[in-house]
Amino acid sequence: MVAAATVLDGVAHRTPVLTSRTLDARIGARVLMKSEHLQRVGAFKFRGAFHAISRLAPGTPVVAYSSGNHAQAVALAARLRGSPATIVMPSDAPAAKRAATEGYGATVVEYDRATGDRVAIAARVAAKSGAHLVAPFDDPDVIAGQGTAALELCADHDLDVLVVPLGGGGLLAGSLLATPDRVRTYGVEPTAGDDWVRSLAAGRRIAISQPQTVADSLATVAPGELTWPIVSARAAGVVAVTDGELVDAVRFALDRLHQVVEPGGAAGLAALLAGKVPDVAGRTVGVILSGGNIGADRLTALLR
Amino acid sequence: MVAAATVLDGVAHRTPVLTSRTLDARIGARVLMKSEHLQRVGAFKFRGAFHAISRLAPGTPVVAYSSGNHAQAVALAARLRGSPATIVMPSDAPAAKRAATEGYGATVVEYDRATGDRVAIAARVAAKSGAHLVAPFDDPDVIAGQGTAALELCADHDLDVLVVPLGGGGLLAGSLLATPDRVRTYGVEPTAGDDWVRSLAAGRRIAISQPQTVADSLATVAPGELTWPIVSARAAGVVAVTDGELVDAVRFALDRLHQVVEPGGAAGLAALLAGKVPDVAGRTVGVILSGGNIGADRLTALLR
Repeated sequence: MVAAATVLDGVAHRTPVLTSRTLDARIGARVLMKSEHLQRVGAFKFRGAFHAISRLAPGTPVVAYSSGNHAQAVALAARLRGSPATIVMPSDAPAAKRAATEGYGATVVEYDRATGDRVAIAARVAAKSGAHLVAPFDDPDVIAGQGTAALELCADHDLDVLVVPLGGGGLLAGSLLATPDRVRTYGVEPTAGDDWVRSLAAGRRIAISQPQTVADSLATVAPGELTWPIVSARAAGVVAVTDGELVDAVRFALDRLHQVVEPGGAAGLAALLAGKVPDVAGRTVGVILSGGNIGADRLTALLR
Repeated sequence: MVAAATVLDGVAHRTPVLTSRTLDARIGARVLMKSEHLQRVGAFKFRGAFHAISRLAPGTPVVAYSSGNHAQAVALAARLRGSPATIVMPSDAPAAKRAATEGYGATVVEYDRATGDRVAIAARVAAKSGAHLVAPFDDPDVIAGQGTAALELCADHDLDVLVVPLGGGGLLAGSLLATPDRVRTYGVEPTAGDDWVRSLAAGRRIAISQPQTVADSLATVAPGELTWPIVSARAAGVVAVTDGELVDAVRFALDRLHQVVEPGGAAGLAALLAGKVPDVAGRTVGVILSGGNIGADRLTALLR
């Protein structure tokens, strides 16, 4: 974790920690918002991608599959390390995200979301070009990179509680490895995609069908292989929030914090605002605002 | 100015300075954004209001007329100083702004925008209750308070250029008093309300009819009596931006900076993005993002 922090020093932003008297009064706690929506590429994903790619020999080709923040993160990290990058994206990916990914110099390979298999396509690219696959969360170096956000927050503040968005579990697992044991750390996922809640109840990884949720960045179908044992052993709990609660949090961030946070990135804030995080009264509560790539058009559609 | 900074220390936020590689590349300069939309009440106006009220005997009643950021600024500043506050607001003021003003404990007196005279009403309140009128810009203590934003920015960074939104001129006049002479400082107003551009061309204060612009916070009809001599003597220039350029800047802030800035608050950024600020290439350019109180509903309407 400290090694990852050293690698990221001067490359990733040490993102600001925002506070709000209004939020504190509403929650009844001191809330510290680690603002990863202000990270490079607009999400914490840059941390894990850069750390993973920095462990490869300079110039090693890389490949990743993602239609979202991980795509841009790998593309930028690869450019900074002089690595050619191929990103496997669905043909219906938003034009802006594709343009941003290409803008960082990556080659985009399209697939049909209905009929294609992005994992197989990425594996083919890897086999053909010798490219290294940068996994979105199931990679120890990615997990360690993501943990540096919580590491920075804990270096500057004594937290009682930490609340982070939960998709595949890279951010949560990294945060759990980065925070002192006494910090109660919660993951927050959408109720429409509650694979973690179900898995923890069952005591084993449960797969669900593809979730439909406004939090596209958290719409995973099962806990990760590497993230599952860390999260199940160490997390204080996993909380689910509805799409309505996610939109309320996006609106609160916009109206009261003057910050643009995407629905998935606002999951921790949503859980706090909905009163779903246990025992926060009077505590110092960290929350990671993990991404801000929603764009004016989707934002206006969401809030209309 | 230093006295105002001392008074505001620990009361106003020392707001963060945001940067963006994307913006720097677009402008061809190093741009430092002093983020007064993250100030208390969401605008720099808190600085001037608190400074002015702090100069009165504690508990002195105050009165102000405003439907916008100055209303909330005076209401909060008065509450913090134990002063009863009366705010004269038009009857069609947005419910949210009225609620926020009342939420800070101020008494709201309504007037009809078509038939009423807010200045006269405020004067009557002052005469009856002995309340001190806190002017929105034509007050030396208000001007000094507003200047502390630029003072903080210049304390931490060597600027070549500073660009600030321009309505009545309180922020620009304060900034001109706060910055070293070698910093070229520009004001930016909406083209629909170009009273400053016309006045500077004429060499005297020119009044225009009530401007219709998306930048409601900059819709003044004439330069201020106190701000005019400071601005006309010291400013490097005044630039006008169209409503379209203002909306483009709001959208850029949202999409690329993940910040919510109201149209008037984005005027400096708009002028930079539109290439209207002279000789910025390769320079260190400060810009004040001066307010963020637009709200989800107006924002979505603006960007639709």
